[in-house]
Amino acid sequence: MMSTTPDLRQQAQTCKDASRQLAWLATAEKDRLLQALATSLRQHQSGLLEANEKDCQAGQQAGLSSALLDRLRLTAPRIEAMAEGAEMVARLTDPIGREVAWTRPNGLLIRRVKVPLGVLCIIYEARPNVTVESASLAIKAGNGCLLRGSRSAVNSNQLLLKLIQDCLQAQGLPREAIQGVADLRRESIEVLARLNGLIDLMIPRGGADLIQRVIQCATVPVLETGVGNCHLYVHSAADLDQAVPIIINSKCSRPAVCNSLETLLLDRSVAAPMLQLLSPQMQHKVEVRGCPETLHLLGWGTPVLAQDWDTEFLDQILAVRVVDNLDQALEHIRQHGSGHTEAILSNDLAAVRRFQREVDACTVTVNASTRFTDGGEFGFGAEIGISTQKMHARGPVGLEELTTYKYWVEGQGQIR
Amino acid sequence: MMSTTPDLRQQAQTCKDASRQLAWLATAEKDRLLQALATSLRQHQSGLLEANEKDCQAGQQAGLSSALLDRLRLTAPRIEAMAEGAEMVARLTDPIGREVAWTRPNGLLIRRVKVPLGVLCIIYEARPNVTVESASLAIKAGNGCLLRGSRSAVNSNQLLLKLIQDCLQAQGLPREAIQGVADLRRESIEVLARLNGLIDLMIPRGGADLIQRVIQCATVPVLETGVGNCHLYVHSAADLDQAVPIIINSKCSRPAVCNSLETLLLDRSVAAPMLQLLSPQMQHKVEVRGCPETLHLLGWGTPVLAQDWDTEFLDQILAVRVVDNLDQALEHIRQHGSGHTEAILSNDLAAVRRFQREVDACTVTVNASTRFTDGGEFGFGAEIGISTQKMHARGPVGLEELTTYKYWVEGQGQIR
Repeated sequence: MMSTTPDLRQQAQTCKDASRQLAWLATAEKDRLLQALATSLRQHQSGLLEANEKDCQAGQQAGLSSALLDRLRLTAPRIEAMAEGAEMVARLTDPIGREVAWTRPNGLLIRRVKVPLGVLCIIYEARPNVTVESASLAIKAGNGCLLRGSRSAVNSNQLLLKLIQDCLQAQGLPREAIQGVADLRRESIEVLARLNGLIDLMIPRGGADLIQRVIQCATVPVLETGVGNCHLYVHSAADLDQAVPIIINSKCSRPAVCNSLETLLLDRSVAAPMLQLLSPQMQHKVEVRGCPETLHLLGWGTPVLAQDWDTEFLDQILAVRVVDNLDQALEHIRQHGSGHTEAILSNDLAAVRRFQREVDACTVTVNASTRFTDGGEFGFGAEIGISTQKMHARGPVGLEELTTYKYWVEGQGQIR
Repeated sequence: MMSTTPDLRQQAQTCKDASRQLAWLATAEKDRLLQALATSLRQHQSGLLEANEKDCQAGQQAGLSSALLDRLRLTAPRIEAMAEGAEMVARLTDPIGREVAWTRPNGLLIRRVKVPLGVLCIIYEARPNVTVESASLAIKAGNGCLLRGSRSAVNSNQLLLKLIQDCLQAQGLPREAIQGVADLRRESIEVLARLNGLIDLMIPRGGADLIQRVIQCATVPVLETGVGNCHLYVHSAADLDQAVPIIINSKCSRPAVCNSLETLLLDRSVAAPMLQLLSPQMQHKVEVRGCPETLHLLGWGTPVLAQDWDTEFLDQILAVRVVDNLDQALEHIRQHGSGHTEAILSNDLAAVRRFQREVDACTVTVNASTRFTDGGEFGFGAEIGISTQKMHARGPVGLEELTTYKYWVEGQGQIR
């Protein structure tokens, strides 16, 4: 088979060229575009359900897991949710053009202005709603976007992209500004990841394997999102009655998402009463994988394996360890944390302060559920993922983080 | 020869561990450390000159160019400048701990707090003053730092690092927080560039070759700095009398630095009078490589070669092209610019606005010299380089850009 490198490069180039027309589009025009997209999604509900049905049938024949099939499936309420998502992005404040400026002693005016990044490339898996969500955020931040979905959602994504491109065209904008990548071979990811100068940011949205593959081969900037091996440490000065709902909520409210709890660390001084309170809430609902001390105190559960400490279960499974003290909890998190969300329950100010300072994660949560690490919960309105890296964006990645800035230096003949 | 991978990893690990002790050091303690370093540099002037003399002699024997030898050379005033640099960093405002906070409707307090990045790794060439400059900025921003200088400066750098580490130790801090990389083989760069989890940011400070080598092999985040193929476009509505000193200053005041002018674009409508004014200022001083029209109007100079448009001369050489209009100037910059500094001279507001918006560079300068793209000139006090990338930091990289942030989420029992 011939290499498709020139096609991908060509596609990225047309996207880059088209993205220039989005960069300084007036906010009202971008919002009108997003509202038109919402209307179009509602109007094409039956066509979308039909296209999606093809994907679902093919998926069933290919033996996709029921979890994957569920993520692939579009329903009338899910299409309505996509439309509402686009409308919500339309209501967000436009970051582009906002500036900070100062004048230097020589009269030079330095303006630091928010501008779009250019072209985003989103690599994602089954869920077709990611297509609309990513395109909406890209448009509002003035970026072009290359969307590389999975083969399993090809019919759904093709129609969604057609609707998006029709909306662009209806407003006199180039269809190429938002494009689906037709080449869905595994290798196409590697080619895209090295298109420096054409792709300004690559965002893999999916499991740890996908993310690591992109990081290993990329020379373009990558935003690392999502893997959450989250810990919650019950300190000796915790309010144990408050701890129970927090722990149950962190683990059970939606175990398949990245901000759910995976490992519970119990200070030895409170381990016995804490487990006594938790036991009736967890038994027959949560599979506990405990250290010997935990199993002894709990009276049920299975022995934890070494690799469990590093596993994002994404399921009703909880690893539990009794630790000597705050130091040991910090050391455990240092060794096994993924930089996502780490929580402490305590009313001791010094312990809380130390935990906040020493834990190296995008979010350090005190006396609340781990599940609050989320763009919506932070008040950002929409997000494209949770960044677990330190550069550029950390934590929920919203509109603001899909921009960069440049300096406009304005003089009246100054020389140096 | 055995691979030294384990040693480098081990070294990075000790740096990472030690960096935790710098992370939340009180500002006063960091400043005291930097002042002690300044004092130490002055006290050890003769030792530094001696160590540097060894490097310079070895460099001469190895046949280093006179330009490289000059950058390698320490003198009493240069040592004083290093000391003053450390004192200047001590006076900068400490970014660490600064925060923005808001409360959500459910009472959750979201605090976004500036924190250090962790461990920086600086890869640099001959100049020993980079050792002190990088270490000072790393310390003030609470970061550990691995310094990988060049073989040619090994004696100078070893003594400088000893002085830095002595100052750390004298204040009860671990020497390992700032370390020189002993392994100066070419391959050590590749090993360092893949130490994810230990190195939080790698900054190559040097020529285009070094920077590209790091980008190609790195899996850790890299800050791309420095290459400046800067353009200046004289628009039809430019003030030509003001243009002369701006162009001469941009090209001649310090041609070897990244913010100096490399290509002059002249609007056809003003090309003849502009060249007439420039000719006496440039002849016998600047080598002009011109397009045919330029040479015809100027009456002297050499024909430009295709590759000249993409060359950062870093010398008294200027490529000159006559362009049809603003569109052609923008297109030329799109094709040949390096994302550093692009300037326009014009008093036409619409043209200026379009140039500012459409040029994709860290700095777009209007009616002033290109040489103002500089941390000091922007008012940042100190910089570690000019970022030509869009992620995390763009333009002059100062203290602020050597930090990241994390979220502290504080509740009173909230669940979701």
